[in-house]
Amino acid sequence: MEIVISIDIGGTSTKLALVHLKTGILEKTAVPSQGYKSQKRYFEKLFEEIATLQSRLDFSYTLLGIGIGTPACNTKKGTIEGAANLAFLNDVPIVQLFEEKYKLPVFLINDGNAAALGEGLFGAAKGMKDYIVLTLGTGFGCGIVTSGIVLQGASGKAGEFGHIVVRKNGRKCGCGSKGCLDTYVSASGIKRTVYKLLADLRLESRLRSISFDQLSPKMIYEAALEDDKIALKAFNYTGKILGQKIADLYTIFEPEAIFLSGGLSSAGNILLEPVLKTARQHVMPFYQSKIAISPSALALNEAALLGAASLVWKSNH
Amino acid sequence: MEIVISIDIGGTSTKLALVHLKTGILEKTAVPSQGYKSQKRYFEKLFEEIATLQSRLDFSYTLLGIGIGTPACNTKKGTIEGAANLAFLNDVPIVQLFEEKYKLPVFLINDGNAAALGEGLFGAAKGMKDYIVLTLGTGFGCGIVTSGIVLQGASGKAGEFGHIVVRKNGRKCGCGSKGCLDTYVSASGIKRTVYKLLADLRLESRLRSISFDQLSPKMIYEAALEDDKIALKAFNYTGKILGQKIADLYTIFEPEAIFLSGGLSSAGNILLEPVLKTARQHVMPFYQSKIAISPSALALNEAALLGAASLVWKSNH
Repeated sequence: MEIVISIDIGGTSTKLALVHLKTGILEKTAVPSQGYKSQKRYFEKLFEEIATLQSRLDFSYTLLGIGIGTPACNTKKGTIEGAANLAFLNDVPIVQLFEEKYKLPVFLINDGNAAALGEGLFGAAKGMKDYIVLTLGTGFGCGIVTSGIVLQGASGKAGEFGHIVVRKNGRKCGCGSKGCLDTYVSASGIKRTVYKLLADLRLESRLRSISFDQLSPKMIYEAALEDDKIALKAFNYTGKILGQKIADLYTIFEPEAIFLSGGLSSAGNILLEPVLKTARQHVMPFYQSKIAISPSALALNEAALLGAASLVWKSNH
Repeated sequence: MEIVISIDIGGTSTKLALVHLKTGILEKTAVPSQGYKSQKRYFEKLFEEIATLQSRLDFSYTLLGIGIGTPACNTKKGTIEGAANLAFLNDVPIVQLFEEKYKLPVFLINDGNAAALGEGLFGAAKGMKDYIVLTLGTGFGCGIVTSGIVLQGASGKAGEFGHIVVRKNGRKCGCGSKGCLDTYVSASGIKRTVYKLLADLRLESRLRSISFDQLSPKMIYEAALEDDKIALKAFNYTGKILGQKIADLYTIFEPEAIFLSGGLSSAGNILLEPVLKTARQHVMPFYQSKIAISPSALALNEAALLGAASLVWKSNH
């Protein structure tokens, strides 16, 4: 049996899995991405976790290779470059590190692109050649497939749609710019919006009792379900900005569909309604009846693991 | 000798040419796109002009096929669909019309995409796999090449970057929306900007003596060369908006370079300086030193003709 090690490095956690081409994910786990004493300790932790996953398999297998999804990767150099939420990994020769440890081929891919590949192979985009996956996690990720090919750019850094400036002199972004989409439409973006609304308005809200560090998108969602005005306004504000930018994506790419994944997308219609309404208002009239925005068909966090793994099979077949 | 008929339908004029794969354009001409008594008369005029071009060739040749570049084409249906500046051609089965007339294979392509293909085959983008051509003509056109493939979208309508909304409730656009990039950054866009500035400001300007219908980008350029404040402000305003959106294109596509073609780009540094300055301000820090914006290396209007023609060779070889 041929299997692949797959790793998805996010701003908050690093997901690891052993994946089979047909069965999908066999074993998986996750560890925090940050808070290690050193970079070396972080990688040692990943190696340990991979060994644990391997020990759980009770059949013989061949390891074909390793697929790694990260934000802001430079696929030509095999490094992460200028990642807003992963400063401690910038310019680390991550591909080389894994090649030396495992003596296996290692493939690096933007995490958004990995999610798009995963959605196309195992999820809601099966059979589509033109589609986009937006991952609303700690940060805003994006994978764009056109004519069946993942948009890569000259060195694999294309698709950083989260760093489009949506507000002039807007919120400070980890990338060094201001007003990036990422700072509004992401788990951390909606938290910032809630805090801005709590500061600006005098509305009562259960969210006033929660600290910034404790606040999660899930709490905002649960408050919204109970008609908390601040929470509802936060989703509406987030959805409007996302809707405007989805209109841009339609005008630029003419996708068959756009899929939303990641923690924030779990809010369902509370987010989707303002997104759809605003997207229809901003798109060329030609697209108004054609806009299709759906949730990902894959379990949270699995799309990128499956997509990163698929690079190894692709190179083998 | 094998040659191709190439047609580039713009908002103001329709360019026609006979093209050879290696030599390039053998014969060419242009006719107005609008002002005919009927649609039928427009097409008859094109057929007549093609016959005239053919009569000028004094050697024997084989016609391989026809390539047509237009805005807003639906490549699957073989029609133009929702073109802002070509309302009289919308939903006309243009591919079928030419097939019936010439009994030859006919290929339809977005005019911006055609310009991008032409630039890659004969121009400044030779050898590049990731680049973008922006055509600043009557309208704003755009051709995007990623991994060597022209961005098409689900039905060939991708790349309508000119219809990204850049100003909420901004200028009325021919597409039905408001505030599209096309209404600011194009020959007609800069005219509208000049008139807005003439209305808002009390500055003296030689452009005050010219009617809207007579005003051309060339006149604005010549005024700017003589330090006409209104003309300079118009180029600065246009360049700033274009620079912001070029920053977005870098963030989304990571191209090796972006090329400017079309009448407005003839203004050279008067336009390019504010474009570059603003693009650098708005792009992710990673790209600040990497932004490359150059003029097209092809004669005005030839890029799209060459690119449309290339579709015929591609299908033959």
